[in-house]
Amino acid sequence: MTPRLSVDFVDAGSVPATDRGLLYGDGLFETLRIVDGRMPLWERHAARLLAGCERLRFPPPDTTRLRAEVGRLVAGLTDAVARVTVTRGSGERGYAPPPSPRPTVVVAVSPLALDARAALDGIAVRVCDTRLAAQPLLAGLKHINRLEQVLARAEWSDPEIGEGLLRDIDGDIVSATAANLFAVFDGALVTPVVDRAGVAGVARAEVLAVRDVRVVRMNLARLLEADEVFLTSAVRGILPVRACEGRTWQAGPAARALQAHWRDIGLPSPTGRKDSDR
Amino acid sequence: MTPRLSVDFVDAGSVPATDRGLLYGDGLFETLRIVDGRMPLWERHAARLLAGCERLRFPPPDTTRLRAEVGRLVAGLTDAVARVTVTRGSGERGYAPPPSPRPTVVVAVSPLALDARAALDGIAVRVCDTRLAAQPLLAGLKHINRLEQVLARAEWSDPEIGEGLLRDIDGDIVSATAANLFAVFDGALVTPVVDRAGVAGVARAEVLAVRDVRVVRMNLARLLEADEVFLTSAVRGILPVRACEGRTWQAGPAARALQAHWRDIGLPSPTGRKDSDR
Repeated sequence: MTPRLSVDFVDAGSVPATDRGLLYGDGLFETLRIVDGRMPLWERHAARLLAGCERLRFPPPDTTRLRAEVGRLVAGLTDAVARVTVTRGSGERGYAPPPSPRPTVVVAVSPLALDARAALDGIAVRVCDTRLAAQPLLAGLKHINRLEQVLARAEWSDPEIGEGLLRDIDGDIVSATAANLFAVFDGALVTPVVDRAGVAGVARAEVLAVRDVRVVRMNLARLLEADEVFLTSAVRGILPVRACEGRTWQAGPAARALQAHWRDIGLPSPTGRKDSDR
Repeated sequence: MTPRLSVDFVDAGSVPATDRGLLYGDGLFETLRIVDGRMPLWERHAARLLAGCERLRFPPPDTTRLRAEVGRLVAGLTDAVARVTVTRGSGERGYAPPPSPRPTVVVAVSPLALDARAALDGIAVRVCDTRLAAQPLLAGLKHINRLEQVLARAEWSDPEIGEGLLRDIDGDIVSATAANLFAVFDGALVTPVVDRAGVAGVARAEVLAVRDVRVVRMNLARLLEADEVFLTSAVRGILPVRACEGRTWQAGPAARALQAHWRDIGLPSPTGRKDSDR
């Protein structure tokens, strides 16, 4: 299904073929959930986008205008996902950034029908063979250089597998392909560092803000000893992990409490089963 | 200057905003020089593109048709550069590759005016602070995830600096930002491995095919002991390095002989100085 699209705040479905987003992945994106027009995590998305523009050194978009643009495109949808892409725009041939870049802003909005079973019963995850490279200069950013995630996600097509866990070169767990990861050990909540690889997710930031969390390095063997494991996503919310590498878990109290928090801020998990679930 | 552009073999200047090249850098490119309509390294470009499509697992374009398309757009230009971009095309939201991808093919052709001084006198290079991450799954490919090169190239704006050398996390020299590197020690030609980071350049492949070359790991200290250093680029040809980190070199016999080879295959270095040189 084609999303509702705007480019540089005007309804449009295409970008110049000279855009550096297409040429080099030279840009950033945010993916957010909008429920009844509300975007409770917007400030976190905007903050990450601004921080990313600063690290990649191009002028940030006006985030107030950006929020209004998402609101314009989402009109009439009760549950929706928006992807906001900001690139360095077009320039002369070559890697050198243009001295006065004019960023391109793409907003794409689609209706969202989340899988109720994922939030209720949890998801089964696999461990991907694709490892994340260590690149501190880009770690944490939600930039457009996502071939590692594409390769990892291409490792499976079984619809019973809900996500894939990614390890770095040293074997430490970083995240899932499109979600962050948390685990509980003896009542203590932990999440992997994302300072060498991975994305500092907005949902992860929300959890860090409302819970005591230790940010750790953790390998797969350690993860499989956890009392509870769940994933966090700005779009999909809190997803209990029910199976990984032969280990199984029940959805635990930490995930359930965070699902309640998510509902309280206006991002409820779906509770029924719909034909569109899969 | 806007290049001559075609998208999917039709004159067009834009691509869908849903293209995975823009969304994830999910694609490959080739940059080639065309002199009087001739593309002597075409077969090497086509071979690398096909190998890249196989590694990223999407259907390759018809390279015969692609070559004809470059030829169509270059008509009337005596010296030109073409960028061929092939992405996985559009798909559903998310990293999962579409099961039946329809790749997007963008061809962009611009007139080329090479810097004669670079080939004659050589270029000064800096050593970049930006390090290349080790990612064996992507190393060698000319894919669109090029933020490392963008960050590295953004480190300097001094026009007297012709290129920047890139090291990996271990400190080994990999390449320049947009060229491969060769060095001569006691008459023996060497070039860095590109199996963990870097691009396996087409000009590098040509040198490997016509010379005895040892493929090595080499740190900066070792490089500065070389008798001769030069860069190779499918567009810029053979560029002697005349200065790096306080060390200076004369353009040496290996570079001069390869410049002669380049001329013999139809890609002459410019020999005069033009207003467009800089």
